[in-house]
Amino acid sequence: MIYLTRRERFSAAHRMFRQDWSDEKNREVFGKCSNPNWHGHNYILWVTIKGKPSDNQGFVMNIDILKKIIQEKVILKIDHKNINLEVEFMKGKIATTENLATAIWNELKDPVEKEGAQLYCVKIEETENNTIEYYG
Amino acid sequence: MIYLTRRERFSAAHRMFRQDWSDEKNREVFGKCSNPNWHGHNYILWVTIKGKPSDNQGFVMNIDILKKIIQEKVILKIDHKNINLEVEFMKGKIATTENLATAIWNELKDPVEKEGAQLYCVKIEETENNTIEYYG
Amino acid sequence: MIYLTRRERFSAAHRMFRQDWSDEKNREVFGKCSNPNWHGHNYILWVTIKGKPSDNQGFVMNIDILKKIIQEKVILKIDHKNINLEVEFMKGKIATTENLATAIWNELKDPVEKEGAQLYCVKIEETENNTIEYYG
Amino acid sequence: MIYLTRRERFSAAHRMFRQDWSDEKNREVFGKCSNPNWHGHNYILWVTIKGKPSDNQGFVMNIDILKKIIQEKVILKIDHKNINLEVEFMKGKIATTENLATAIWNELKDPVEKEGAQLYCVKIEETENNTIEYYG
Amino acid sequence: MIYLTRRERFSAAHRMFRQDWSDEKNREVFGKCSNPNWHGHNYILWVTIKGKPSDNQGFVMNIDILKKIIQEKVILKIDHKNINLEVEFMKGKIATTENLATAIWNELKDPVEKEGAQLYCVKIEETENNTIEYYG
Amino acid sequence: MIYLTRRERFSAAHRMFRQDWSDEKNREVFGKCSNPNWHGHNYILWVTIKGKPSDNQGFVMNIDILKKIIQEKVILKIDHKNINLEVEFMKGKIATTENLATAIWNELKDPVEKEGAQLYCVKIEETENNTIEYYG
Repeated sequence: MIYLTRRERFSAAHRMFRQDWSDEKNREVFGKCSNPNWHGHNYILWVTIKGKPSDNQGFVMNIDILKKIIQEKVILKIDHKNINLEVEFMKGKIATTENLATAIWNELKDPVEKEGAQLYCVKIEETENNTIEYYG
Repeated sequence: MIYLTRRERFSAAHRMFRQDWSDEKNREVFGKCSNPNWHGHNYILWVTIKGKPSDNQGFVMNIDILKKIIQEKVILKIDHKNINLEVEFMKGKIATTENLATAIWNELKDPVEKEGAQLYCVKIEETENNTIEYYG
Repeated sequence: MIYLTRRERFSAAHRMFRQDWSDEKNREVFGKCSNPNWHGHNYILWVTIKGKPSDNQGFVMNIDILKKIIQEKVILKIDHKNINLEVEFMKGKIATTENLATAIWNELKDPVEKEGAQLYCVKIEETENNTIEYYG
Repeated sequence: MIYLTRRERFSAAHRMFRQDWSDEKNREVFGKCSNPNWHGHNYILWVTIKGKPSDNQGFVMNIDILKKIIQEKVILKIDHKNINLEVEFMKGKIATTENLATAIWNELKDPVEKEGAQLYCVKIEETENNTIEYYG
Repeated sequence: MIYLTRRERFSAAHRMFRQDWSDEKNREVFGKCSNPNWHGHNYILWVTIKGKPSDNQGFVMNIDILKKIIQEKVILKIDHKNINLEVEFMKGKIATTENLATAIWNELKDPVEKEGAQLYCVKIEETENNTIEYYG
Repeated sequence: MIYLTRRERFSAAHRMFRQDWSDEKNREVFGKCSNPNWHGHNYILWVTIKGKPSDNQGFVMNIDILKKIIQEKVILKIDHKNINLEVEFMKGKIATTENLATAIWNELKDPVEKEGAQLYCVKIEETENNTIEYYG
């Protein structure tokens, strides 16, 4: 079994808050991350798939196919967007990196499997000090 | 003459646009960066000062002082903020990294000189591929 | 299950040696790392915890709490210190990165569990080419 | 159980192609990577071994021994070489990073075990966006 | 005056040698870099231009234009190619990074000036330890 | 004129203090960096030389020669040493990075010139946030 990881990047705005909480409560729990005027990040996304390299090509999956899947299913929908307002797959979720990782997993699982590999890990770096991983 | 560089980071939301242009015109010139719902970045800021190390301490400037100046004059005003709406020193300016660099230069110049050194360079990385430098 | 990783850094002095060995024996086994006048490193520490994001906040753990635990239990005790002479949790141990990782694990395990998450991995980079991981 | 990772680097030329395919077929499957005049990369190699730190030295393995094994078994055979034409352990294989990872695993497994540790992972970065891992 | 830097990457094969020297002489001067079967690198290219940000847009140059110039004039001609055999602008030159930097400068100077900015620096990293800069 | 930069690394212990000051005064001025039991860093050193590439070889200087000069004149004298106690070229100086940069410049200037190039810059990173440059 071989693990193949593709790195992609996106820049987006977000804020952490709950609509059913007051501004004070949001500020208390989420701190400066709840700023109503938004802030943003350069997110780094690593998608790891696993599989057996084909005898034919020696690849787990042609990296161009994996890249295209991530672009279509994730990057085009989130890059230079507002995660809270504009990203369909985050609708109704608090915009934490935890929730982002599971939502991106759900976006990628089927398309990766349709190509004959398994999705293994979605890893997201929000800042150089904070990273989230989800393994399904 | 010795050059001392301090690296600091901030995350902020912004959009590039001109109020006197239509949405179409803004989209045409600034592309996805003009998204009305904002996007954001993890900016990296390098501030370089120059001076002669004091015989007394062997420093151009005590790094804790430089760090405190940058925190007070820049980071506290811009980190987890909306550059267009909330950052006083960017008021009335298009939120490009070019304009950000000159504005941060103006914030830092006097406090650095008051400590006996000269401000030499303000460098800002917006994404890992795009960087701006300003030397006054 | 979600994995959350926090990166922190510390700079410290150390040497590798055994008191019950001669200087020659120490030099033979530990090489230049046994220098009696010490040397030091910028260590990078990644602490990974795992858990289920709360419905309430969408976090495995509020990153500020994790950061505070690592600061109190590790960074304040080791940053700008001599690992052999001054770090309580390394007392009586050879100052290898292997022993450092298990000692830091022991410092962090209880406080992380008290917050409702599990400690998953302690990873330490000693130099850009040498890294240690401990999973309990 | 402790995991120790050593990073090494090598620069090499390669192309991806099958001799039993036409140039057109190779170009179709492998794209620009099949260029008959070769191209090349700065590969980064991380070798992870696992074991119990010895009471004696506090090491999983002396890093100098691990470094020497990787140098002799891998780096000297592949650095500044043509992977398709000159690297014995890649003979008869398509020069993908997947195949490279398993071949390097086979080079390292016995020598690592002879030193009393287990080989855990071979990880290779081909470009900053594409990485392969093999766990045996 | 503002300095804007764009980072791009390319992977290529090369060897260092002079046709008018024997293999022995080439090996003596250029070492393993003269390998007749080629080797290769992931080159990183930073192109710095300078200019006055326009009042109109706040840019030295729209980064998309600079990106397009570098792609067309450099990346498309050298990425996944053999620098000695296939890169027109390196014809007749020893394939050192020094010569690469001046050749890329010549490729970029006119197109950058046609857009109203000045080319300031071409910087190329061949390996993480070796970098070349050319300022015209 | 071409600029060639070589990166090297060393790990060392140091403390910042003046013998003619009390411990309190040292602590007041140098903070935790004055710890009498030492601390240490992974220093990164970039040495930049400038010159005209020779027609003969296309090099400013053969990188192996520059590497050897830096190894002999700097790395061997400071790597895994105590900067205050064991490094000849830092004798009598406060162990700041500023003083380190000028001292390393003095070590390298003559050997670089003897090879027909000019020393242009000595740059030292003490931590990822603090860097010093000296241009003679």
